This record gives sequence, structure tokens and C-alpha cells, in this order.
Amino acid sequence: MDIENEVLGRVSPSPARRKRVEKAAKTLLAHVLEAINDTGLPLEATLQGSVAKDTYTSTPDIDVFVLFPESTSRKDLETVGLGIGKSVLGGEERYAEHPYVHGIYSGYEVDLVPCFRISSPVGLKSAVDRTPFHTTYIKSHLAERQKADVRLLKQFMKGIGAYGAEAKVQGFSGYLVELLVLRYGDFRSVLAAAGSWKKGEVLDLEGGGERFDTPLVFYDPVDSSRNVASAVSMDSMACFQHAAKAYLDSPSIRFFFPRAPKTWPLPKIKKEMDKRGTGLLVVSLKRPKLIDDDLFPQMKKTAEGLQAALEAGEFSVVATSTHPMEGRVDLVFELMAEELPRVMKHVGPPVWIGHAVGFLEKWSGKAVVGPYIENGRWVALVERKYRRAPELVRGEATKAALGSSFRDLAGMEVRDTAGSLKADMKRTLSRHLDRTLPWER
Amino acid sequence: MDIENEVLGRVSPSPARRKRVEKAAKTLLAHVLEAINDTGLPLEATLQGSVAKDTYTSTPDIDVFVLFPESTSRKDLETVGLGIGKSVLGGEERYAEHPYVHGIYSGYEVDLVPCFRISSPVGLKSAVDRTPFHTTYIKSHLAERQKADVRLLKQFMKGIGAYGAEAKVQGFSGYLVELLVLRYGDFRSVLAAAGSWKKGEVLDLEGGGERFDTPLVFYDPVDSSRNVASAVSMDSMACFQHAAKAYLDSPSIRFFFPRAPKTWPLPKIKKEMDKRGTGLLVVSLKRPKLIDDDLFPQMKKTAEGLQAALEAGEFSVVATSTHPMEGRVDLVFELMAEELPRVMKHVGPPVWIGHAVGFLEKWSGKAVVGPYIENGRWVALVERKYRRAPELVRGEATKAALGSSFRDLAGMEVRDTAGSLKADMKRTLSRHLDRTLPWER
Repeated sequence: MDIENEVLGRVSPSPARRKRVEKAAKTLLAHVLEAINDTGLPLEATLQGSVAKDTYTSTPDIDVFVLFPESTSRKDLETVGLGIGKSVLGGEERYAEHPYVHGIYSGYEVDLVPCFRISSPVGLKSAVDRTPFHTTYIKSHLAERQKADVRLLKQFMKGIGAYGAEAKVQGFSGYLVELLVLRYGDFRSVLAAAGSWKKGEVLDLEGGGERFDTPLVFYDPVDSSRNVASAVSMDSMACFQHAAKAYLDSPSIRFFFPRAPKTWPLPKIKKEMDKRGTGLLVVSLKRPKLIDDDLFPQMKKTAEGLQAALEAGEFSVVATSTHPMEGRVDLVFELMAEELPRVMKHVGPPVWIGHAVGFLEKWSGKAVVGPYIENGRWVALVERKYRRAPELVRGEATKAALGSSFRDLAGMEVRDTAGSLKADMKRTLSRHLDRTLPWER
Repeated sequence: MDIENEVLGRVSPSPARRKRVEKAAKTLLAHVLEAINDTGLPLEATLQGSVAKDTYTSTPDIDVFVLFPESTSRKDLETVGLGIGKSVLGGEERYAEHPYVHGIYSGYEVDLVPCFRISSPVGLKSAVDRTPFHTTYIKSHLAERQKADVRLLKQFMKGIGAYGAEAKVQGFSGYLVELLVLRYGDFRSVLAAAGSWKKGEVLDLEGGGERFDTPLVFYDPVDSSRNVASAVSMDSMACFQHAAKAYLDSPSIRFFFPRAPKTWPLPKIKKEMDKRGTGLLVVSLKRPKLIDDDLFPQMKKTAEGLQAALEAGEFSVVATSTHPMEGRVDLVFELMAEELPRVMKHVGPPVWIGHAVGFLEKWSGKAVVGPYIENGRWVALVERKYRRAPELVRGEATKAALGSSFRDLAGMEVRDTAGSLKADMKRTLSRHLDRTLPWER
């Protein structure tokens, strides 16, 4: 296919680029081995990741793992491992599940990761110990011609916004993409198969293990107790399935390289809002200093907490979206109505229940209407605490279930876009309002 | 208690009134016996109802039952029975479950009912056959002093609007009131006991039979397979329970003789509506020519059908009420919002389901926003068919589940009171808006 050839032309490394990457990896490895020699310990250094597997699509990160004997203490592994990393890269220490050193070498981003050399991934001491087994598995199973299919599928996932297992995306990891190509044979066969995946689809190459309750399950061929697709969210899975069908129906380079989302001018935003007739509420919070893998789940939790508070106050939320910005995070709530009537219906206990008296005592004389009896229960129309959504958010945010790093509400700004649209909301509002699929932009 | 004595003074027959009633009943019975003689058949005539039991509270109806041998054919019973009724009363034939003649005799309303003389109510051929057994049971069990308690409880039930098993009230029949006094001993003991009734409370005097799933169960002492309280609705039961507690806490003549509900002047109605901020929709339909026992259930069904249509169109209904008027029936729907935004959220099938394609094809290019994916499902914001409630009722009423006699919508008027209040709506709107309990008016 011309389109796929064009994509490969853009994402496969040229001989010159490949040579540069290989050279950098080789000299880096040599440097690491020197540093290992200096320790006098029986360590190994191995190349991992997409460079080792030759499945990268752009300038790759280089991953080097330093393997320690299984008898090493965790503390020694960290001290020695990070020492080697710093002596080679002079970079910064990072922690995922596990400490490692990140730095730049010959212009490439490099991760230098200490891990245990284990005999089987089933007995692993730390999640990174499994990586060398993944690399070995892919290198020994992926045919040369399938590397192009992996590159196409990775770029396809990137284009539709479903590439990466990190919290920001909740999509398909590189390893999962490689396994899908192994499972179905080539790029187009993966797309064709995805069209008929069901919710909770279960895939494997070497057999499966325990049940997982995730939208997609792919048993790790090197450790059947692990689900490689555990990060894939319902939306990433659905987006991929739909994109796969849409692409096979009508292929386009835009699936791989979509146009950037547009930020609309204010008049267009205004027009779009008028067209819908809904109300938009923008809550801006101070952006906490967190890595993305912590920021995104907390941002989502915060939006869900505020949405629950709005719904408890009878504001009907049509759609919610979250937008990390420079120094702040914008949460958008699209509402069916921005203002509610003065009363709300308060359904109390059945009349025959002992504590019904409490309801009567509380509301008699205080309710706008009632208490009266409806279907055997006490009902009162009582004065609503908040008639407008911004008032509710200002009054209830401290009591809502927010992400722990979002509890400092000092800088909270709540804007109701009914009246005034401000220029600094353009990007956020455009992202919220524009639901065009990436490849249709 | 002074209050109860005052009530008894108003509802117990004076010696003169009692004499008049007894005389009328006696001469009526004599007349019926003459007519029976003319037939040459072995029939009996007996006095039934509240006159027989001496438990009436105002000018009573006189009920005379003509008993036929069990061997009589149903057809003969009707022909002969109605013949006797007409010869004595010249009245009109009526049908409940059973044909009878209604007329006026000496200024009293009279029902003359033919029935079978059965040996036990368990073998009854028709529901009215049980009545003589009820009369006998009450006459033989109710002490003379308890007649005052029955009169008090009947008048209490009338005052709070819970007296009568008919569809219009769905409350406590006279026989049930008598049984309650027998069960608990006197008026105040019934009220005290009602305060701790639970939903589905089960009562009896002579043991119970099968289970019934009604708010209140009272096994008929003459036929344990029957629930005397089967007509009592959740609201009648709850109203009685609350009124009983309220009366015992703070007795007042108003429980027995409430003030009539007021019809408010238009400015007061307007003020009340402004106070709530809700919207009122009044649907007026031609009143079908039906007896109350058919009219009320159908009116309720019609209101429920239209409420369901409004809710399907996302109008949130706070309260509904029905008002039979001269020549028309008014149905009132109190709404949280009278106007909704242009779009509504249409949640479609999960992306991985085969027919999801149908949703996409239907809405692509036609939806105001989307289709887009949310939680794995296709979602579209689509143009709402009806933004205002009156439009919805006009457009959907023919498709709604209405009472069968309300399907002729030719004369339907739908009024949205947001703008204009008309004088002919005063009574209906006052009844809807005024939720004051009868005894607090």
C-alpha cells in the first residue's frame, strides 16, 4: 500500500540513522562495561528496548540494563547500579517502581537501569527484571519483515492517541504492539482482528493464566501471570477498534500523522456554545508539581469528585474534560442547565418509620412546600442551597473527593462561561468542544 | 375529651333522626316483603349496611338485600331481583360487580340488592353475598359503646380524606373502620396503634390466610381468604398514620371537620410559583363519561403516561396532580425546567458491538457533536426534538400510554403557565400548589 510505504519511509530508520544509533549504543555499552570493571563485581550490561529489538519509529531512547547476581542485596544493587549510571551519564536519578539513572549520551536520551539477573521471569524480584526476557522473546520470535509491521502499528497507535501505557494515555505499550504483530502476523491482520474484539477480549501466544477484569487481556508470553494490556482503558481500546475499522474502510495517512488540534478563535467558540445551548463551567486549579503518571490520575479523580458534587446538587453534567496547562489545570464541566429553580425535591423517609418524625421536625415551617406525603413517603420542596453551578463549586469543593495534591484550593478560579469568554480559556474550551477524531481533523 | 364529644354531638343521630331513619327502613322493608309475596318465591329481605349496624354518621343510605335460594339461576336472580327493586323504588338499575336498583324512599337514598342466601361466605357466588355475614359479624361483636368509636373513626377518616374504598379515595371502607375498632377496642386505641404500623402491616380478628402484598392487610373475620384493606393505598395509609399521631399529640376538631381547600386569587398563585421557580404545565382533556371508579384510575394512568413521555424527553417532573373538572380533566405537571438546551446526550452502543456501525451511520454528520467515544461507547450530542414541554405533549401524547377513554385528544389544550395565568385555571392550580394537610388549612 502506498500509504503504508509512505509511513514506513518516514518512521523506519535510514541506514545512516541506524548506523548512528548503533554506534552510540555500542560505545555506551563499552563505557558501561568499563564502569563495571571498576567495581570488580560480576555484572553484565545489555542493550534493551526498541533499539535492541530494532522496532523504534523515531529518534529512540537507548535503554541499558546492568544485571546483578540474584544474591546481591537490594541496597547494593541500588548503590552500585546508580553509581555506574552516574559515572557514565552524570544524569539524574529517577524512580519508577525502581531507581534508575536518566541522562544524555551522544545526543540520545538514555535510561540506565540496574536489575537482577534471574533465571525465570516467574521468580522476579522487581518488575524491571522481566524486561530482558521480553527483549529476548521479541528478538527470537519477530521475523525481520515484521519489524515494519511493528513500526506501522506503533505509528498508527501514536496517531490515534492510543500509544503508551502511561497514565496520560492508558493505551498500548510498545511491547504490546510487538506481541499483537506476533499474534496476528502483520499490521493489517491486527487491524482486521481488532474489529471483532469484544469487551474483555483475551489474547495469548504461549497460553494464559488467571482471569483479569480489564477491557483487553494479553498474557505475557514470558510470564502468564501477567497481563501486558492491563493499562489499556476502555476508551483506548474502543478508539483503536474504531480507528482500525475506519482505516481498513478508507485508509489515510492522517491515521498515522493527524493534524494538530486547533485552538479556535473566541467567536467560533461562542458560536459552538450557542449551537449546543449547554453551559460550560471551567474550574482552574493550581497545577501540583507531579510527574505525569501521578498528575493524570489525580486530575481525573478531582474532576470526578467535582462532577459528583455538581450532580448531588442536581446539575446534569453532559461531558467533563481535563486540561493540564502551564501552572494550572483546567477542568471543564458541560452542564444541561446553569441555573436551577429555587426549590429542590427532598424525598424523606416513609411515614411509618420511627425517624420520619425527625424529617417532619426538620422541615415543618422551613420547607418552601410541604412536608407532604407521596407514595407513602414524606416529601418536601426545600430551598436549594446552590442555584448556580459556580456557587456550588465554590461552596462544596473543599468537601468533594479531590486528588490529594489538588486539595489546596487557595488559587481556585471558577468561571461560568455563560457571560464572559476570556482569551486564556481559548485552548481549554476548544479542546473540550472539538470532538473531532484525530484522523478527521 | 371535649373535642370527641363535640364530634359525636354532630355525627351521632339525634333520637328524632334515628326514629325517622328506623321508620323509613321499616316501611321500606315491609314494601319489599309485599313485592316478594307477589313473586310467590321463597325470598327474604334484610336490612344491611350502616343503618343495620347503627354506625352511620350523617343521613345514611338504606341498604336492603333480597336473599334468593342458592339454587336460583343467576338470570332469575337478576330479573326477579331488579323487578322487585323497580316496583318498590322505581329507581335506576346500576351495576357494581353485580346489578342492583338505586332509588329514593322517604327522602333517603336506597340501594336494593339481590343476592344469594349462602351457608358460608367461603362458598360465595358473588361478592355481595358476603355482606349479610359482615352485618351479622359486626352486630354480634360490636358493643353498644363502641358504636361511638366507629362514628368517631369514620368521621376522622372522612376529615383527613381517607374514607372510602372507591378508586377516587383508595382509603378505608366503613367495614374496615368497624373492624379496626373491634381489633383495638376504641377510637383512641386505633389511633395509638396506627402510629406503629409498618408497611404491609397484617391485622386479623379470627386468624389469617394467604399473604397479600398491599400496604395494609386486614383478614376478613368471616372469610380469611379476603383482605378487607385491599383498597387502601400507600398514601391513604401513610396519611392516616401521620394524622393519628398528629391528633394524639395535638387534638383538634379540624381533623374531623377540616376547612374546605381554598381557591387562591391569581396574584397569590403567581407569587407561589415565583417562590418555587418551577414551571407548571396544565394539560386539559375532555372528561369522558365514566363513573368515578373508572374515571379515577384512567385519569391517573393518563397522567402517568404523559409524565413518562415528559421524562423520556428529559423534563424532570417534580410533582403531578389530576383534577376532574366540569366537562374536562386537568392534569398538572410541575417541571424543574420548562425549556431545555438544544442538544441532548445520546448514549449509543459500545464500540465493539456489531450494530455500533448503525449508530455511527445514523449520526455521523447529523449529530450536533460527535459521535465520539466515552467509556467505550459511542456518544452523540444530538438535536433535541422538543425543547419546550408543551411542544412535547402536543407531539407525543398520541404515542403515550393513556387511559383508554382519554385517547380522544381532539379537544386537548396544553398550557404552559410560564407566561399567562388564566382565571379558569385558578382552582386547578390552587389544588396543585396548596399541599397543606386538611387539618392544617
